[in-house]
Amino acid sequence: MTKDEKKLGPQRSRIDEIDRQLLDLLSERSSIVHEVIEKKIRNQLPIFAPKREDDKTDKFRQMAGERGLDPDWAEDFLRMIMASSRASQSSSQFPRATEEPKHVLIVGARGGMGRLYTRIFEQSGHTVYKIDKHNWYELEEMAPKLDLAIVTVPINVTADVIRRLAPKLNKGTVLADFTSNKTDPIEVMKEAHSGPVLGLHPMHGPDVNNLSKQLMVACVGRDEAASAWMVEQARLWGMRVIEADPQKHDHVMHLVQGLRHFVALLHGSFMKTYDLDPRDILEYSSPIYRGELMMTGRIFAQSAELYADIVFANEERRQLLLNFIEHNDRLTRMVKEDDKEGFIKEFEAVTDFFGSFANQALEESGYLIDRLTDRFA
Amino acid sequence: MTKDEKKLGPQRSRIDEIDRQLLDLLSERSSIVHEVIEKKIRNQLPIFAPKREDDKTDKFRQMAGERGLDPDWAEDFLRMIMASSRASQSSSQFPRATEEPKHVLIVGARGGMGRLYTRIFEQSGHTVYKIDKHNWYELEEMAPKLDLAIVTVPINVTADVIRRLAPKLNKGTVLADFTSNKTDPIEVMKEAHSGPVLGLHPMHGPDVNNLSKQLMVACVGRDEAASAWMVEQARLWGMRVIEADPQKHDHVMHLVQGLRHFVALLHGSFMKTYDLDPRDILEYSSPIYRGELMMTGRIFAQSAELYADIVFANEERRQLLLNFIEHNDRLTRMVKEDDKEGFIKEFEAVTDFFGSFANQALEESGYLIDRLTDRFA
Repeated sequence: MTKDEKKLGPQRSRIDEIDRQLLDLLSERSSIVHEVIEKKIRNQLPIFAPKREDDKTDKFRQMAGERGLDPDWAEDFLRMIMASSRASQSSSQFPRATEEPKHVLIVGARGGMGRLYTRIFEQSGHTVYKIDKHNWYELEEMAPKLDLAIVTVPINVTADVIRRLAPKLNKGTVLADFTSNKTDPIEVMKEAHSGPVLGLHPMHGPDVNNLSKQLMVACVGRDEAASAWMVEQARLWGMRVIEADPQKHDHVMHLVQGLRHFVALLHGSFMKTYDLDPRDILEYSSPIYRGELMMTGRIFAQSAELYADIVFANEERRQLLLNFIEHNDRLTRMVKEDDKEGFIKEFEAVTDFFGSFANQALEESGYLIDRLTDRFA
Repeated sequence: MTKDEKKLGPQRSRIDEIDRQLLDLLSERSSIVHEVIEKKIRNQLPIFAPKREDDKTDKFRQMAGERGLDPDWAEDFLRMIMASSRASQSSSQFPRATEEPKHVLIVGARGGMGRLYTRIFEQSGHTVYKIDKHNWYELEEMAPKLDLAIVTVPINVTADVIRRLAPKLNKGTVLADFTSNKTDPIEVMKEAHSGPVLGLHPMHGPDVNNLSKQLMVACVGRDEAASAWMVEQARLWGMRVIEADPQKHDHVMHLVQGLRHFVALLHGSFMKTYDLDPRDILEYSSPIYRGELMMTGRIFAQSAELYADIVFANEERRQLLLNFIEHNDRLTRMVKEDDKEGFIKEFEAVTDFFGSFANQALEESGYLIDRLTDRFA
C-alpha cells in the first residue's frame, strides 16, 4: 500500500463497518420476509402482491431522495432486495388455489418442464402422478382419481400422446397441454376427449428457479369453469397469465418464437464461417454488443431438436419464414446496389412503425446494458 | 385490509424500519465514498480500482454466507452499491493522467460524442478547445497551443476534415480520430500529418453518464510514446482500453457492428410488414423475448444516418454483408425443402463452434433476463 492509499484507512474501515451492518439488516429482513410468506401460505394469501410492492417502491424512492440518493438507483436496489425473497422461494412452498388438494397427472414427467411443474405442484400442496415412456401401464390405476392431466412431451409426438391418453380419462378430468403452439393440440384434445380442455403455453424454460413473473398463455378449449382453478393457481405462483384465442396465440408466436430463432441461426451460422473465435468478438465488444452476443449465444447452449421443433412447428410457420426470406430480397438488393438512401428510408419506416415503443426499448435496454456492465464487464 | 393481512402488521412495520435504516447506511456510505474519491483526485490515484473491488466482493460473499444469505445475490447487491458511486461521477471530477493540464482540441464539438468528451476532458482538468462547422477561422489561434486534436465528425466527411485540419497543426501535436473504422482514417492522418497519429474508437454512444467500464479501442498510427498519456487518461476514466492493429479492428467490427445492425434491420423491417403492433408482441413476450425485442427496438430509436454509416462504412463491409446474404441461401433452402434434419445439423455445428462460450452466454443472459424480469415485467 502506498502512503497515499494509507490516508484512506479510516474511511475504508467505516465503509467495511457499514457493509457489515447492511448485511446484518438484510439477513434480519430476509428472516422476517420468510415468516410473512409462511403466514400467507397458511392463510392462503397470494405470496406476490404487486400493489404492495409498488406502494413500497414509491415510499422508498421518496425516502432515498430525502437522503440525497438517486431515486432510480434506490428503486433498482429495492427491487433487488424483493427479488431475493422471490428467488429463495425455490425450496419453499406456494399457496394452493383450492381448499382441497387436486390430483394432477404430468405426462412427460421425465422432461425438463415435467420435472419443474411436478415440483411446483407438489410445493403447492397438490398430489402429483407421473407418467413417461416407461410406465404407461400405471395410467389405468391413476386415471379415476385425476382432476387434471397435463401433456408435456416433444411437439412431434404430442398428438399421438393425447390420443393415447384421452380414452383413459374420466369425463370430468381437465385435459391440458404445454405445447408451444395451440391451435392444433387443442383441436386434437377436443376431438379425443369429451370433457374440459385447456391449452397452456408456459413461456419460459425448465431452468427457472420459480415461476415468479413468468408468462403463461391460457386458451380455453372447452368448459372454462372447470379449469378456472388452474388459471388461478398459475397466478398464485406469481405468473402473468394471458387468456387468449388459440389462433391469435399461434399468429404472434410465429413472430416471437419462430422468426426470432431463425434469425439467430442465420446470425450464429454466419459467425461460424467468419474466421473469428467468439472470444475475439467478446474482447472487442462494448457492453451493448456483449449483451446482444449473449442473447444470440444462449440459444446454442440449448437443444437443437427443441429449436428445430419451434422453427418447423407447422406449415403456417414455415410459410412465415419463407415470407421473411422473400422480404429480405429487397434489402439485399439495397446492399448489392450500394443504395444507402434506400437503406435510410427503410430504417425510418421501421422507426415510424415502432413509434414510441422504440424509445421504451432504448430505456429498458439501456438499463439492461448498465446491469450487464456492472456485473460482467 | 383483511383480518389476515392485519396479522402481518408487526412484521411489516419492522421491514419498513429496516428499509429506513438501510437507506441511512447507504446514504452515509455514499458520502464517505465521495470523500474518498475527492482525496484520490487530489492525489492523482485512479478512482476505479478493480483489485480492491474484487477483494471486497470475496469478503462480502463470505460475510453473506455466514448470515444465511445467498452469496451470488449478495455479490450482485454489492456491485449495485459500487455502481451507484460510479453513476454519481457524471457531475464530478476525474483524475488527470498528466502533471500539467493538456490542451485538447475537439473537432466536431457540437456532435454528441464531441459534447460528451469535451465535458469529460474538462472534468479531468484539461483545457478544451472546440471547433465545428461554424468557427473554423478560430483554428489559427488555437493550433500552436495544442497537445492533442481529436476529429469526431460524421464518417463521410472525416477524410476531408482531417486533410483540412492537419496542415494547421504543429509537428508535435497528436492527431487522433473517433471514427468507427480505423484503417482508412489512420492512413489519411499519417499522410496529412508528420507528427504522432492515434486512431481511437470509443465503443459507446453519446448518451452514457460516464465512461466507467466502456470500451475504447486504440490503434497507434505513429509514435506510441507521444500519445501514451491519452491511453492512460482513458484508463483513469475507468475505460477498458484495447490496443489493437487497425486491420484486426476493422475485421472484427464488420461482424460486431456491420452485420449486427443489418440483421436487426431485416428483423425490424419484417415485423413492420406483419400485422402486429409491437405492443401486441410485447404482451405475448416472456422476459427472454422481451429482452430481445428491446435489444432490436432500441436501434430504431436512434439515427438512421448513423446506422447507414455503420452498415455502408466501406467496400469491405459491404462485401461481408453480401457474403452473409449468400450464406443464408443454404439455410433458406432448408426451410423451403422442409429439411428439419439439415437445420439440426447446422444448429449443432454452430454449437460446436461456440463451444463453452454458449454456456457462458446462457449464464450471462440468464442474469440479464432475471434483472429485466424484476425491473420491467
